[in-house]
Amino acid sequence: MNDLPSSDLLSISRGEYPADLILRNARLVNVFSGQIETTDIVIAQGKIAALGAGYTAAEEVDLQNAYVAPGLIDAHVHIESSLCLPPQFATAVVPRGITTVVADPHEIANVSGAQGVRFMAEASCDLPLRVELMAPSCVPATNMASSGATLTADDLATLLADGTVRGLAEVMNFPGVISGNGDVTAKIRAFAGTPIDGHAPAVRDKQLNAYVAAGVGSDHECFTPEEAQEKLSRGLYILIREATNAKNLDTLLPIITPANSRRICFCTDDRTPADLLTAGSVDDMIRRAIAFGIDPIEAIRMCTLNPSEWFNMHDRGAIAPGRVADLFIFDDLQIPAARQVYTAGKLVAQDGAIIDPVPNPLVPDTLKGTCKIKWSGVRLDVGLRKRHIRVIVHLANQLVTENKVMNATVRAGNIMADPQRDILKIAVIERHNETGRCGIGFIQGFGLQEGAIAGTVAHDHHNLITIGVDNVSILTAIKAVLSAGGGLAAANGQQILASLPLPVAGLMSDRPIAEVKKNYDQLLAAAKQLGSKLEDPFMAMSFMGLEVIPSLKITDRGLVDVNAFALTELFANG
Amino acid sequence: MNDLPSSDLLSISRGEYPADLILRNARLVNVFSGQIETTDIVIAQGKIAALGAGYTAAEEVDLQNAYVAPGLIDAHVHIESSLCLPPQFATAVVPRGITTVVADPHEIANVSGAQGVRFMAEASCDLPLRVELMAPSCVPATNMASSGATLTADDLATLLADGTVRGLAEVMNFPGVISGNGDVTAKIRAFAGTPIDGHAPAVRDKQLNAYVAAGVGSDHECFTPEEAQEKLSRGLYILIREATNAKNLDTLLPIITPANSRRICFCTDDRTPADLLTAGSVDDMIRRAIAFGIDPIEAIRMCTLNPSEWFNMHDRGAIAPGRVADLFIFDDLQIPAARQVYTAGKLVAQDGAIIDPVPNPLVPDTLKGTCKIKWSGVRLDVGLRKRHIRVIVHLANQLVTENKVMNATVRAGNIMADPQRDILKIAVIERHNETGRCGIGFIQGFGLQEGAIAGTVAHDHHNLITIGVDNVSILTAIKAVLSAGGGLAAANGQQILASLPLPVAGLMSDRPIAEVKKNYDQLLAAAKQLGSKLEDPFMAMSFMGLEVIPSLKITDRGLVDVNAFALTELFANG
Repeated sequence: MNDLPSSDLLSISRGEYPADLILRNARLVNVFSGQIETTDIVIAQGKIAALGAGYTAAEEVDLQNAYVAPGLIDAHVHIESSLCLPPQFATAVVPRGITTVVADPHEIANVSGAQGVRFMAEASCDLPLRVELMAPSCVPATNMASSGATLTADDLATLLADGTVRGLAEVMNFPGVISGNGDVTAKIRAFAGTPIDGHAPAVRDKQLNAYVAAGVGSDHECFTPEEAQEKLSRGLYILIREATNAKNLDTLLPIITPANSRRICFCTDDRTPADLLTAGSVDDMIRRAIAFGIDPIEAIRMCTLNPSEWFNMHDRGAIAPGRVADLFIFDDLQIPAARQVYTAGKLVAQDGAIIDPVPNPLVPDTLKGTCKIKWSGVRLDVGLRKRHIRVIVHLANQLVTENKVMNATVRAGNIMADPQRDILKIAVIERHNETGRCGIGFIQGFGLQEGAIAGTVAHDHHNLITIGVDNVSILTAIKAVLSAGGGLAAANGQQILASLPLPVAGLMSDRPIAEVKKNYDQLLAAAKQLGSKLEDPFMAMSFMGLEVIPSLKITDRGLVDVNAFALTELFANG
Repeated sequence: MNDLPSSDLLSISRGEYPADLILRNARLVNVFSGQIETTDIVIAQGKIAALGAGYTAAEEVDLQNAYVAPGLIDAHVHIESSLCLPPQFATAVVPRGITTVVADPHEIANVSGAQGVRFMAEASCDLPLRVELMAPSCVPATNMASSGATLTADDLATLLADGTVRGLAEVMNFPGVISGNGDVTAKIRAFAGTPIDGHAPAVRDKQLNAYVAAGVGSDHECFTPEEAQEKLSRGLYILIREATNAKNLDTLLPIITPANSRRICFCTDDRTPADLLTAGSVDDMIRRAIAFGIDPIEAIRMCTLNPSEWFNMHDRGAIAPGRVADLFIFDDLQIPAARQVYTAGKLVAQDGAIIDPVPNPLVPDTLKGTCKIKWSGVRLDVGLRKRHIRVIVHLANQLVTENKVMNATVRAGNIMADPQRDILKIAVIERHNETGRCGIGFIQGFGLQEGAIAGTVAHDHHNLITIGVDNVSILTAIKAVLSAGGGLAAANGQQILASLPLPVAGLMSDRPIAEVKKNYDQLLAAAKQLGSKLEDPFMAMSFMGLEVIPSLKITDRGLVDVNAFALTELFANG
C-alpha cells in the first residue's frame, strides 16, 4: 500500500487504498438533497474521498451521530474591522465553524493600496481559515475624501490576473454604476465573468434596474423587507448582513421562503473583537434564523451551498467527493454550535478553541507608521459665519444618518459643542500624506458630556476622526492615537483614559484578539464614563466619515451631503 | 434622443430614453423569487433593460396578463439526432419556447472531428436559438469501435480556448473516469472550472464516489429514483432525460422536492423529427411535470435558472435587467404552451410557427460523401463454429440490452437469421476510412419477418449498421443508403421500400424538417410492413452499436461485452 501515488485520490474513493481519516456515524447535512443522511465520511489528502460504508482509514473517529455540515462561509467581511490581523481573526471565527470568509480588504487598501491587499493575502496563508479576497472596487470611495491610495481598474485587473482576488468587492459607488461612470464601468468590465458584489442602500425601481443591468450581482445593504424582495426579484443575491453596528437580520428573516432562499447568503461585514468572541460570526445568524422558524438545513445552506454558488467556489460549500474536507460538527440541529471544526481534513478547533494558533505575520515597515498629520492644518476652532449649521444626526445601530439644520451654540465668536443638546464637535484630519486637510462639523447622537474620542479607523479613507466636547480633550485623544502609530483613544482634558494601539496601517493590532478585546472594553468603559449612551461609539464614529452612506457625513474635505453626492457647507440658511 | 450611444443600455434602464419595446401587463414568472409578478418588461438592444412601470418605448405590446417566463433551456441534446441541420432543428424547437440548447455535437465529431464541431457552430450562427456547444469528450467513445476522427485533450482544449465550446460534454467513458485513465483525466483537467457533464449509467456507491471526485458535475443517465437520489446527494446535477428512445421522466419525477429541485434540469438528449414536431422539447417535460404535481414555477426553473447556473450562463435563465430578452409567453400556468417566443428581444415564433425561418447553411464538400465502404470486407455469411451464439436482446424503450446465449439456427453450414424466433442478423460496417472492418452478430427484439433496414446513424462511431432477415435485403438496404451519401433505408429483397438521404456526414438531411419527418414516417411504415413491432426500429438500431451502454453491443470490430468493457466472441459455450 505504500506504493500509492499521493495524487491518487480516486483509488481511495474506489475503496482500494485506506484513507487518511474516516468520521463514522455522521449525520451529514446534505445541502444538495436538503436531507440529513447517516453515513461515514471518508477523507484523504484534505478532501472528501467518499461517502458511505465499507471504507478503511489510518485514523477512525466515531462521531456518535453528531451532525456534520460543510464548513461555514461568511459571504462578506472586512477582516480589518476585527482590529486584528488575519491569524487572530481566524482564532475567533474558526472555532465557530467558519472555514471560509469572502473578505474585502478595502480598509487596508485605502491606506496602502495593492501592497495592503497583498499583505492581507500573505497574512492569510496557512491559516485554518480560507480567506478569499475580493478586489476593493472603491479606493478611494469617492473624490470627496482623501485616501492613502488609489486602485485603478488596471490595478484591480492585475490582482485578478495574479490570483490574489476572486471577484470585485462591493461596488459602493452606486451612483457611478447607475450613471455608467467610466471608471466604475471599467472596473466592472475588468471583472466580467467573476462575482461582482454590490452595495446599493435604498436603491430601488429604475435606479435598481440600471444598477443590476450594469452587471452587479449581489447586495448586502437592504434595510427593509420590501427593498430586499425587490432586489432579489431583480436578480441580486441578497447577502443578509448582521454587523456589530448595522443589523439587518431580524428585519430580513421574514423574506426568506423555500422558493427564494437559494438566492440568500449571510454575512457579518464588520464585527468588533467583542462581538466575534461573544456572539460569533454567521454561525450565530444560523442559530437565530432557525429560532425564527427557518428550516435548519435551509439556514445552513445560506452559509454553505449558496455562497459557494455565488462566488464560484465549487470546491467547497458541500460535503461531496472531491470537495475540500471543511467540516462544521455540532450536536443539536435546532441550535447548531460547533463542537469540532475541520479544515482540509484536519481537526483545527474543538469546544470553542483553536487547536494550533497561527502566529501573526511579520508586518513590513511600510505598513507601520502610516499615521502622520500636518499639524499646521489642524484648526479646531470654527468661527461663526451663520447662525444655522448642518448637523450630522447619528441614529443608533444605523450607518445612515440624518442631515438636520440646527441653531449653532456660539461662544466668543466660535461655534461650540453643546453637550446639553448632545451636539459635539467632529473632525476628520487627513493622515496619509500630511496634506493638512481637516474637515470640521458637528454631530448629534453620541452623548458625550465631556472629553473626546479619536481613532484612525474611519471608513473608508481611514483618516484620523475625532468627536469631542472641547478642543483640549480632542487634541489629547488625537495625540494618544498618533503616538501609538494609529489606533483608538479616549481622553478627558489632558488625560488619556484608554487607548488601543493599531500600528498596522492604523487599522489593526499586532496583539492577540483577546487582548485587543480587553483594551477595547476599556475604551468603551472610558467612553461611557464620558457620557456616551451608545453601545459602541468607536465603531459608530468610524462610519461617520463614510461618504457613500446617506445622509450627512464628514471627511477631511468637509461635510458631505450624500444624497446630493457632493461636499456641502457647514453653515446653512435657517 | 438620437444622440443616444447604442451601447448605453443603462440610460434606458434609468428611464431617460425610450426603449425598443415594452411588453405591458405581463405576468412574469420570477425564477428568483419563485413568484408571479405583474409588471411591464422593458427591452432594448436585445436585453432586458428594466422591469416595472413608467417606461416608454418605440413599440408597445399589451400582453393582457399572459405569462412570461425566461426562454427555455434544453440542458443536453444532440442536434444531429433530429436528422436535420441546426436551422431546421431550431424551426422545430423555438416555437415551443426553447431559446437555448446545450448541444453536444459528438455525432458529427465522430465522423468529422473538430471540423464537424466547427461546422455545427457556424451552422448555428444567426439562429433564433442559442446553441451552446460542449466539447465531445469521447471521440472515439472507446477503441472497440472505429470512428472517423479522434479528438484528443489538446484538440478539445483548442475548441475551448477559441470559444467554440463552453464545457466538456458527457464523459461517457465512465470506467476511464473512475480508474483515473490518463487520457480521460487529461480532458477533465483541461476543462477545470467549466461545466463537465457526465454519463454514468448505473454507477453507484464507491464507483460513484470516484466518478464525482474526478471532477464530473452532472449526469443524465439515471434509470431509477434511487440512483438519481444517490447521484444528486453526491453533488451531481441531475439532468432528467426524456429522449425518443430513452424515457426517464415518469420514473424520476417522484424524486423532485422543493429542497432538491435546484439541482435538477430537463433535457431531451436525442429526439426524432416526429417527436420534436408533435410532442415538442423540454416544454413538454414541463407540462408533464406540472401534471404530475410539481409546482409550475419550480418546473419552469428546471429549464431556466437551474441550467443557467450549472452551465455558467448567467446572461439568461431569468428575466432580469441586463440579461438577454429570451422569452417564453403562454396563457395557462398549469399547461404552459408557447403562444409567442422572443429571442434577444425579437418576436421569433408565434402560435407554433417560426416567423423568419433561417435557410440551411452551405455544407462543405468534406462533410458530404463521408460514407465509403470497402466491399471486399463485407462478409455477411457466418460460418458455423459452435452451436451457441451470443445474441443482443433489445429491450423496448431502452438503450441497455441483454446479453443472452442461444442456440444458433443453421442452414448449409451458416448461421441464419430466424424470424420465427425473432433472431435477426445485425452487421456494422466501417464507413469512414474504407478499412473493410465488418462486425456480424444476431439480435432479438426487432421483429422483422422479412427484408432489412440499414443506416449510417449508429451511435457514436456512426458506421453503417444494418439489421435484416436475409443477405439480399441487407445488401439492397446498404446500397440504398450509400447511394444517397448516407442515410436510412428499408428494403425487401432487391426492392428499396423507403429511404431518407442524410448526406451531411451521413447524419443529417439538408431538407426541411417537415420533409424529413415525412420521409421518416415512410421508413417507419416500411419497417412495420416488414414486421417490426417497435415504435422506431431505426432509432433503436442506431443505439445497438453504442459500446458504452450495457450489456451486449456490436461495432465494426465485433460484439462488445460492455460490462467487461471488451470485445467478445459471437460463439459461446452453451
